[in-house]
Amino acid sequence: MTVIGLGLMGQALAGTFLAAGHPTTVWNRTADKAGQLIGQGAKLADSAGDAVAASSLVVVCVSDYDAVRELLEPVGDGLGGRVLVNLTSGTSQGAREMAEWAQAQGAAYLDGAILAIPSDVGADAVILYSGAQSAFESHESALKVLGAGTTYLGADHGLSSLYDVAMLSLMWNIMNGFLQGAAMLGAAGVDASGFAPLASKGIETVNAWLAGYARQIDEGAFPALDSTIDTHLAAMEHLIHESEFLGVNAELPRFIKAMTDRAVADGHGGEGYAAMIEQFRRPAGDRT
Amino acid sequence: MTVIGLGLMGQALAGTFLAAGHPTTVWNRTADKAGQLIGQGAKLADSAGDAVAASSLVVVCVSDYDAVRELLEPVGDGLGGRVLVNLTSGTSQGAREMAEWAQAQGAAYLDGAILAIPSDVGADAVILYSGAQSAFESHESALKVLGAGTTYLGADHGLSSLYDVAMLSLMWNIMNGFLQGAAMLGAAGVDASGFAPLASKGIETVNAWLAGYARQIDEGAFPALDSTIDTHLAAMEHLIHESEFLGVNAELPRFIKAMTDRAVADGHGGEGYAAMIEQFRRPAGDRT
Ligand SMILES: NC(=O)c1ccc[n+]([C@@H]2O[C@H](COP(=O)([O-])OP(=O)(O)OC[C@H]3O[C@@H](n4cnc5c(N)ncnc54)[C@H](OP(=O)(O)O)[C@@H]3O)[C@@H](O)[C@H]2O)c1
Ligand SMILES: NC(=O)c1ccc[n+]([C@@H]2O[C@H](COP(=O)([O-])OP(=O)(O)OC[C@H]3O[C@@H](n4cnc5c(N)ncnc54)[C@H](OP(=O)(O)O)[C@@H]3O)[C@@H](O)[C@H]2O)c1
Repeated sequence: MTVIGLGLMGQALAGTFLAAGHPTTVWNRTADKAGQLIGQGAKLADSAGDAVAASSLVVVCVSDYDAVRELLEPVGDGLGGRVLVNLTSGTSQGAREMAEWAQAQGAAYLDGAILAIPSDVGADAVILYSGAQSAFESHESALKVLGAGTTYLGADHGLSSLYDVAMLSLMWNIMNGFLQGAAMLGAAGVDASGFAPLASKGIETVNAWLAGYARQIDEGAFPALDSTIDTHLAAMEHLIHESEFLGVNAELPRFIKAMTDRAVADGHGGEGYAAMIEQFRRPAGDRT
Repeated sequence: MTVIGLGLMGQALAGTFLAAGHPTTVWNRTADKAGQLIGQGAKLADSAGDAVAASSLVVVCVSDYDAVRELLEPVGDGLGGRVLVNLTSGTSQGAREMAEWAQAQGAAYLDGAILAIPSDVGADAVILYSGAQSAFESHESALKVLGAGTTYLGADHGLSSLYDVAMLSLMWNIMNGFLQGAAMLGAAGVDASGFAPLASKGIETVNAWLAGYARQIDEGAFPALDSTIDTHLAAMEHLIHESEFLGVNAELPRFIKAMTDRAVADGHGGEGYAAMIEQFRRPAGDRT
């Protein structure tokens, strides 16, 4: 196979193919990043065009979609009959446009998203794919080498980018929630390592609720199985007061409460937290 | 023991003591909420004062600290020599004031926080306690009945409220992160139950990173082990574009990015995400 783009992630991808015994051709704008991979047996192509020509499966992973276009457009002819797998992060729109372009070159196109850090590649990395199922299946066994969490999502090329940003959003929210708590406890003299074990346990607890929330969202009915939004709101005031009292940043607590205030104003105070989905579904201005 | 306050949570607490074979006296402003508990063997006190007088361990769990004061101040005399455990949610300041008041009545005071829903009480509920260690230890075996996650935090009565809001903050952030993702995928035709399994897996992954982030926070050094803040920022733009493109609420994505922009402006772009702790530590206006 061919791997184009040897940043942190591209190197992990190519290294994993090599470790699994796949003959691998690599190319990077800055050639010297190939050094270690060549030591592992990679073949360094002289140009992006040569790299494309070397394999029926061409994996590209660079900074963004603009870089993918800049890099591949001059060598588009060579893509005919190959499977192009783009593991660069982007938007669903970008993925769909790229799919059109690749298909116009006669290539089968899979858009992918890596939900993992480079060191998880080749281990339990979650890597999502969308596009023609036949293209995925024809290279499934090779792609599975890259991560135990290899998942095919569907024919719409935009799906992997969509899931990607949805998952990243979840990730940033968890990390921000942890950082807010760590900042608060830190201001009271508790170190972050003292908070982490309890935080981890709390995360596990909340994680176990998600399937139930999802069911409520899909059914569009939000009976309060435990706390109502009104009860959450009261506790959100404690969070704000506590943050202000400790002198830490209270913006995130205020943001959380403002959104919840709107849910109460919309009449959802007596429902469970999943009813907040309606606030997330439409821009704040669009009150119904 | 005595349980005062028979809302959703108070009923779970009293019911758990009864199920464990502890003779239990209960009282609630609205007496008829005691019905089921009486059926389980609870003794209903005629007044809050009688309820306090009935046991050496008095647990109170009502809406807020104002309600605790309203309820206990008239019967404060009777608290002398008893252990008062307040499982009502509040702020650390409120807990410290309550501790002073209770101690002035001659009572030992433990402030507690229940990080669980009523149905988890008596099972794996996390319940945090702070205050005199001797008071905790004298009733530890009875309190442990209420939850396998019974944890004593330290002498500062404010600690349980602090941990409580820190954990709630984490919880709301996780749920909001999930709802943002569910709203986005929903707009693209994917149902929330389709997103939940991957979201759960992602949460587990992030959870495993926390201990490392905590170590960085405590050491005050944030080398980027995987992605830099600059890389996160680029992906946050995808999240915003995607949310806007789908027509869902983009406030939370914009909030996340705005905070990250400030970290980059402060020179942390090349560090790992844990360096964001500095943004959480001080109000947004307090730039250094
Ligand atoms: N690192 C992670 O933890 C992680 C996790 C999930 C997803 N991803 C995604 O994976 C992709 C790559 O990330 P990375 O961590 O490998 O980034 P990186 O280390 O910054 O590497 C960027 C790569 O893109 C190449 N590049 C950028 N602009 C180019 C252009 N105009 N023409 C040709 N090549 C260009 C760079 O080539 P030069 O070496 O010549 O500069 C380099 O190979 C990104 O979309 C990222 O969002 C990364
Ligand atoms: N439910 C949960 O999932 C949960 C989880 C963690 C922590 N908590 C905390 O546990 C506490 C109780 O919650 P809950 O769910 O049991 O609430 P709830 O079902 O609304 O019950 C509130 C209780 O407070 C009593 N009360 C309110 N104002 C009073 C006053 N001025 N004087 C005397 N009694 C008064 C009510 O008495 P009446 O029956 O007479 O109105 C009732 O017993 C809250 O601090 C809550 O934050 C709850």
